[in-house]
Amino acid sequence: MATTTVPSGAARSWWGWGRTDRALPDSECAELAALVPGLPSRPLPVPDVGGLTLAPPRARPPASLAHRVSADPDVRAGHTYGKAYRDVVRALHGDLSAAPDLVAFPQTEAELVDLLDWAGSRNVAAIPYGGGSSVVGGVEYRGDSHDAVLTLDLSAMDRVLEVDTVSRAARIQAGVFGPALEAQLREHTGGDGPGLTLRHFPQSFEFSTLGGWLATRAGGHYATQYQHIDDLVESMRVVTPAGVSESWRLPGSGAGPSPDRFFLGSEGALGVITEAWMRLQDRPVHKRSASVSFTDFDAAAEAVRAIAQSGLQPANCRLLDPGEAAVSGVAEDGTSVLVLGVESAHRPVDGRLAELTALAADHGGLVRTSRDAAAGRDGGGDGIGDGGGDGSGDGGPDGPSAAVGAWRSAFLRMPYVRDGLARMSAITETFETACTWDRAPGLIREVRAGIGAAVEEVTGRPGLVNCRFTHVYPDGPAPYFTVIAAGRRGSELAMWDEIKAAAMETLARHGATVTHHHAVGRDHRPGYDGQRPEPYALALKAAKAALDPHGVLNPGVLLDAPAPAPAPSLAPSPAPAPPEPGGHGHG
Amino acid sequence: MATTTVPSGAARSWWGWGRTDRALPDSECAELAALVPGLPSRPLPVPDVGGLTLAPPRARPPASLAHRVSADPDVRAGHTYGKAYRDVVRALHGDLSAAPDLVAFPQTEAELVDLLDWAGSRNVAAIPYGGGSSVVGGVEYRGDSHDAVLTLDLSAMDRVLEVDTVSRAARIQAGVFGPALEAQLREHTGGDGPGLTLRHFPQSFEFSTLGGWLATRAGGHYATQYQHIDDLVESMRVVTPAGVSESWRLPGSGAGPSPDRFFLGSEGALGVITEAWMRLQDRPVHKRSASVSFTDFDAAAEAVRAIAQSGLQPANCRLLDPGEAAVSGVAEDGTSVLVLGVESAHRPVDGRLAELTALAADHGGLVRTSRDAAAGRDGGGDGIGDGGGDGSGDGGPDGPSAAVGAWRSAFLRMPYVRDGLARMSAITETFETACTWDRAPGLIREVRAGIGAAVEEVTGRPGLVNCRFTHVYPDGPAPYFTVIAAGRRGSELAMWDEIKAAAMETLARHGATVTHHHAVGRDHRPGYDGQRPEPYALALKAAKAALDPHGVLNPGVLLDAPAPAPAPSLAPSPAPAPPEPGGHGHG
Repeated sequence: MATTTVPSGAARSWWGWGRTDRALPDSECAELAALVPGLPSRPLPVPDVGGLTLAPPRARPPASLAHRVSADPDVRAGHTYGKAYRDVVRALHGDLSAAPDLVAFPQTEAELVDLLDWAGSRNVAAIPYGGGSSVVGGVEYRGDSHDAVLTLDLSAMDRVLEVDTVSRAARIQAGVFGPALEAQLREHTGGDGPGLTLRHFPQSFEFSTLGGWLATRAGGHYATQYQHIDDLVESMRVVTPAGVSESWRLPGSGAGPSPDRFFLGSEGALGVITEAWMRLQDRPVHKRSASVSFTDFDAAAEAVRAIAQSGLQPANCRLLDPGEAAVSGVAEDGTSVLVLGVESAHRPVDGRLAELTALAADHGGLVRTSRDAAAGRDGGGDGIGDGGGDGSGDGGPDGPSAAVGAWRSAFLRMPYVRDGLARMSAITETFETACTWDRAPGLIREVRAGIGAAVEEVTGRPGLVNCRFTHVYPDGPAPYFTVIAAGRRGSELAMWDEIKAAAMETLARHGATVTHHHAVGRDHRPGYDGQRPEPYALALKAAKAALDPHGVLNPGVLLDAPAPAPAPSLAPSPAPAPPEPGGHGHG
Repeated sequence: MATTTVPSGAARSWWGWGRTDRALPDSECAELAALVPGLPSRPLPVPDVGGLTLAPPRARPPASLAHRVSADPDVRAGHTYGKAYRDVVRALHGDLSAAPDLVAFPQTEAELVDLLDWAGSRNVAAIPYGGGSSVVGGVEYRGDSHDAVLTLDLSAMDRVLEVDTVSRAARIQAGVFGPALEAQLREHTGGDGPGLTLRHFPQSFEFSTLGGWLATRAGGHYATQYQHIDDLVESMRVVTPAGVSESWRLPGSGAGPSPDRFFLGSEGALGVITEAWMRLQDRPVHKRSASVSFTDFDAAAEAVRAIAQSGLQPANCRLLDPGEAAVSGVAEDGTSVLVLGVESAHRPVDGRLAELTALAADHGGLVRTSRDAAAGRDGGGDGIGDGGGDGSGDGGPDGPSAAVGAWRSAFLRMPYVRDGLARMSAITETFETACTWDRAPGLIREVRAGIGAAVEEVTGRPGLVNCRFTHVYPDGPAPYFTVIAAGRRGSELAMWDEIKAAAMETLARHGATVTHHHAVGRDHRPGYDGQRPEPYALALKAAKAALDPHGVLNPGVLLDAPAPAPAPSLAPSPAPAPPEPGGHGHG
């Protein structure tokens, strides 16, 4: 239970992204100094987590739950933050003041219900952890309204419980990580044939859970059609302090506002998702990809608009601006690069790829010879997070398809590079959004100019402001911006905060959402509060009060935490708490 | 303002479906007796609405709104019911006891806000009417908690206000009927080229409004991919007593639970939708359709499952069982018929149709020669409600494509036939649902047997129980059942109630939704209450209390109306009400 490994067995970093064995060594960190001028020549050392001191836990679980609850300092340290830039910087500086008092690892829904009952009765904030990959402050308690903080780690609830191969759906526990989920689906649906897959591959695939994806409306690898996990949900089971909510398995329904859509994106503030019936697909066997260069980014964006409105629905349609293409090692000639991928379980996709590249060429794109991404093979092609090592042997580094492969490896490596940059005291911020096509060019121009100016003002030097499109819709793209600037050691957070505020303000001015798929958490609250219609805020607040009357569920995400309770503190209770009288119908 | 015409200029029936000039004449009603044994030989006469007496209105609007409010008996009579079987029967029996006291026709959102303020201050129930085509008791006040009833008819707010041709979206007022909406879009986007279309064609297209579609999560003509209008919504504007909610125009977002999904399906209980930005599409220019016969319904259903899981996404994929095929005049040889249609704005669809028919043939289907449904023409092909008269000249009645055309005309005529049957004192009930594929065969078998038995028990004679699939998903179909039985004159409602209760019970037992696209209204409340997760009911109730503190918005749909107010009645106010002090931020 004190595990900090990842499902593959590799150790999971307590301070940074992913696996410890993938972290950049000091020498590579130092090389990053070439990216932006003004960085120091040596990286910050990674502190020894064993040497850091945590405040003693302010609460003790009841004896009946004690075997599922850890107060181990390593476990608490590893569950202190998500994986946002702010989190990494604080960890690197040895700041674990936000550590939870306790971390619970329930093995059953009944245990989770008991934990929530206990939390409610003791004014203990309960924070669902997912895979801990939040980049928006979604899993970190901030505030002083509660007497203690309990992190809920559902990673022991990690099974595919049932597969309906006729309807192509599976009942899956929320704590399962991406790779384990796909591995179990493969067992259930036969290892010989292509079988079934959820095929939801966020960049965090290896380090995030089904429950986390649902609670944050995660974006998968599909650039079109199934951008968010929302559409893959058939039904959900959610534990709330007011009872267990379970929707019916339905392919579609018009019976009132959708209960699932209400819990999707609720970020642990309305309940803890314990399982879901998810829609599956046949594994694709036909895959093709291509890359297209553009000398003009705006022309490339127009090509993407034409593609998004064409009905061709490519699985991959990532547009990288010149800076992004350069950082990814995809192109260093100042061109913008469009990475296209098509896939199908049923029929060849060459015709579709040809139509896509023709559209791109119509808009001035130079099409690199397309390649067979991994026809007939599994886990290949443009399936990001498809298990790694996918088809990277196809085509040499100088071959026509190098751009596709280069982008894919860079994409998976980006978070590790971000950590390396943090060790070099660079300010890095990635912010992602979506807006309608009519507003996109103005937004992108102004982010480049305005955030560029903000970076210079805050750091005293110019930085990088890059843009790519991660997902596209017929009515607009989802631009993803990466900002890299030279920070001052010790002032990284203050500088980041200023740049982040400027970013949120710019998005709002252009009517662009504060987040397309990273979620709101705590870091996006200012933008979210301005964007959310006020009557809807009233409705949400009332709904939360009904479902979470003690206000212990992930306080501060989506809505303000309640004011500190006037009741006497119940902190470190010397004896196990008595069982709750009566309880409240978890049925 | 006292209009009871439809947008085409034809008179709208006050008692039955649609246009008066399309109602079945007495002679055709009498011919329907051949359908089910035991019907009387002559139809009920249609009463003279002018001869019916309504109770005097129990409230008077303030002078400032009086010019937008009608107490005209004809107008009140025409707004008494939706168009459910129960509604038609009551109207035919001259029962207008449920007539609203007043009918308001606001021309602006500000007027609507004032009307809601007034209703809230006077304990007057406010019922948004949409196009008045509800078939689930969605627009009829039932209860005694309010001092008067005001129906809100937004048909004067019927403009397409803005079109963004770059992002392909339009800002549209909620009161517009389907044909006027499409006509205005055509003006905005050029009459020469194919232009843009919302392409949402429910069976009620001619008699329902955008606001009604959104409030009830209407199902359009697409059998796959865009089954509900939900996916076509970019943003919505909703007037609630607690203020105006307006979401941002976004192609996609992950910022908290979707505000739009919360108001979609809220049936007027949480607010009144006044406008929406809707996603548009290029008008299709390539269309093809075909029909396929099956001697075995279960094999046909398997073919449909294969199609739904194939990724081919036909626009039309209607499966009619032998009874449904016979009633529609599509086939009288005891076969089940699958009607397929494909369409595209961008590329020929012959290949896709060939793949679809091949899949159907693989499952034992006999493919009729497919036809060019209306290539290059507009408003044709399988676009139900596309404006009528669509391609009905293609192919003679005995030609290979007769089935497609026959089905289409029958589809549009069905509600008129239903009214004719009601005049013959037949019990007719259509109930529609959705369930996963693994449960579908059992559900359909049991509906045929169980509802067949219920009909015989209730009416003393066997009736018809037919089934078709209206929409299909990869994980399940949306079966639509039609029940026709011989009723006893004067006992129709009691008999219908018994059959309806049996239907809802059967659906629930199979985990099938109480409604796929007709909405909940009041008639489906028992099934809905059982289906909706209890914690979600708590959340919804709390949200409604926050948005509608006086409980005047369409009381009784989705949630119970509050108990009668203890305050003294304010009924027929002799003078205009004073303006509300302070008001409450509609901003």
